Amino acid sequence: MSLPNHFELLATDGSARAGKLITPHGMVRTPAFMPVGTAGAMKGVHWREVREAGTDIALGNTYHLMLRPGADRIADLGGLQKFTGWNRPMLTDSGGFQVMSLADLRKVSENAVTFRSHIDGTKVELSPERSIEVQRLLGSDIAMQMDECVRLPAERADIERAMRLSLRWAERSRRAFEIAPAGYMLFGIVQGGDVPELRRISARATVDIGFHGYAIGGLAVGEPQPVMLSMIEEIVPHLPAERPRYLMGVGTPDDLLEAIGRGIDMFDCVMPTRNGRHGVAFTRYGQINLRNARHADDPRPLDATSDWPATRETSRAYLHHLVKSGETLGAMLLSEINIAYYQRLMHHIRTAISQRSFSKFYQLTRAQWAQGDIAPR
Amino acid sequence: MSLPNHFELLATDGSARAGKLITPHGMVRTPAFMPVGTAGAMKGVHWREVREAGTDIALGNTYHLMLRPGADRIADLGGLQKFTGWNRPMLTDSGGFQVMSLADLRKVSENAVTFRSHIDGTKVELSPERSIEVQRLLGSDIAMQMDECVRLPAERADIERAMRLSLRWAERSRRAFEIAPAGYMLFGIVQGGDVPELRRISARATVDIGFHGYAIGGLAVGEPQPVMLSMIEEIVPHLPAERPRYLMGVGTPDDLLEAIGRGIDMFDCVMPTRNGRHGVAFTRYGQINLRNARHADDPRPLDATSDWPATRETSRAYLHHLVKSGETLGAMLLSEINIAYYQRLMHHIRTAISQRSFSKFYQLTRAQWAQGDIAPR
Repeated sequence: MSLPNHFELLATDGSARAGKLITPHGMVRTPAFMPVGTAGAMKGVHWREVREAGTDIALGNTYHLMLRPGADRIADLGGLQKFTGWNRPMLTDSGGFQVMSLADLRKVSENAVTFRSHIDGTKVELSPERSIEVQRLLGSDIAMQMDECVRLPAERADIERAMRLSLRWAERSRRAFEIAPAGYMLFGIVQGGDVPELRRISARATVDIGFHGYAIGGLAVGEPQPVMLSMIEEIVPHLPAERPRYLMGVGTPDDLLEAIGRGIDMFDCVMPTRNGRHGVAFTRYGQINLRNARHADDPRPLDATSDWPATRETSRAYLHHLVKSGETLGAMLLSEINIAYYQRLMHHIRTAISQRSFSKFYQLTRAQWAQGDIAPR
Repeated sequence: MSLPNHFELLATDGSARAGKLITPHGMVRTPAFMPVGTAGAMKGVHWREVREAGTDIALGNTYHLMLRPGADRIADLGGLQKFTGWNRPMLTDSGGFQVMSLADLRKVSENAVTFRSHIDGTKVELSPERSIEVQRLLGSDIAMQMDECVRLPAERADIERAMRLSLRWAERSRRAFEIAPAGYMLFGIVQGGDVPELRRISARATVDIGFHGYAIGGLAVGEPQPVMLSMIEEIVPHLPAERPRYLMGVGTPDDLLEAIGRGIDMFDCVMPTRNGRHGVAFTRYGQINLRNARHADDPRPLDATSDWPATRETSRAYLHHLVKSGETLGAMLLSEINIAYYQRLMHHIRTAISQRSFSKFYQLTRAQWAQGDIAPR
């Protein structure tokens, strides 16, 4: 029993794809980058700026939201989209990954993960069924199956155990999702670490269960980029062409470009906001560290050719001063500038794919990054 | 030799006045509230929001800016207005008050204050002449004379000594300002603590020296509101009606309403942003603490009748969640909401004065504050 498909492929160029995904809260253009609003807020960025930057869909973290303010409360308030005022598509993770990285005293069993909340120490149980229920209460346009993700490097036996558990949880997640209203989606997650054989097994079995879309989990967790890219190459041929493909937790602009060239449609990452808080801007000239003293007297903007006002109009000298002074406004401006850069990159990639000029765009973009920042004054 | 007057009184209603002040970077409608951008940035608020909220003029702190990024650097970058991208009128304090409250190892002599920078421990000397020079380098539309401000309660002898020193510094500040380009302004500061006689002496002597406008310093430094208001009443009759009057470091919306009713034209205060960072909103219903659990499930906005989008559209439940979670966005939204509230209050006051209905507005506003917040759901 195949789930309905809400994804439409509009163009392909080599392995790169451009498409659109229809969700209950609106349309998502792919390739899509989802900025991360962990606890229902983007750190340092207003939702209106997230939208104006060109964002179609944002990510919320189930683990944080179920602990505070609570899934029932968000349901009563009309769902995460309405609660936050974002009012547009949202994807939520299953909570499993965050339990592993944030909660105390976690214990994984066949049935569920139990843990203590990092906020108030309450003991909480998260099973695949509960994760799906929480994501339904949150009103996620796209829910994720619960899985277990292993940090790399890891032993093959550990990777395989987690992958097999994730498959059993995939089936339970899928069953639990059956009562979801029409239009809402559930994505399965391919696991298997850096072991090609396990990735193939996981991909085939996950597709056999059948989901609205397919995610690749357990990458960007410590492995070098070439390992990540070769895993994508192992997995993608086993995924149905007509369904969206989401690479979880990735990445740098370079990662995005490479993964899109290998057939990925969706991404999420905290990097634009996290690097922004650390004084780093993503630009067409590559990453720029505003802490560097070379910017202290530089009246030029980060990129005079950008169509994003903060990127084009704010001087490097001012950004340097804000970052050095620890002013919130520095983190706010750089986070916004970075989200805008990511969304402009995605926009240009979508256009390039539609015009079948992706490899030309790929080369030009990489050449510009490699050239580095404009010369100091 | 009287300084040119850039202030025009447009209407009076009792002691309350509405006017306009023409500065090199634009016009300021009075009564005016100046939000504080200490180190060249408003904490948690974009400059475009500061403007959209209805702000005509902002305040920068000379002490912070001279230490970092430095006055010469800001001069080279085109002045504080251009450096920040605010591009509108700015007033700077003399730096004296901040030296007293922030710097280490400060020493006040007849000639100057010497201190160690709280940033890097550098020894710095700030004299009236240097303060005026720094403010000229910053490009302040309105510079303040250097003064010494005493925290209350204090001995009369201490208050008088500081007041007399401030008068000698007023003369030196005035002489140092003579080379300033046309259109830029220097305000004198009346000191004298809570001693009516000293306030009168200070007011007369400061007016004798002659400034573009007159400030009342050394209030809102620990004394009860009635003391502050009675000091204003002592001083105002000694100030020339045709010049602007600025009450430094004040205050709550209630303080503003009371002081405007006693003839004050300008204010500055960190309260909108500081209280915002602490989860407190200023509204027509008075101050509202968003930390309070009564808001956790409340989908209503702070004020459904406000014309400011964030005030009218953001739910109390979401604000409560952001504040409880320590999300930056909570501080950002509440700081913006508070600045917008202050500027709306000033706008309504200006309108009321022009229509000679200030006392009616005063009573209605106080009645609404006294009534308190809307009932919990």
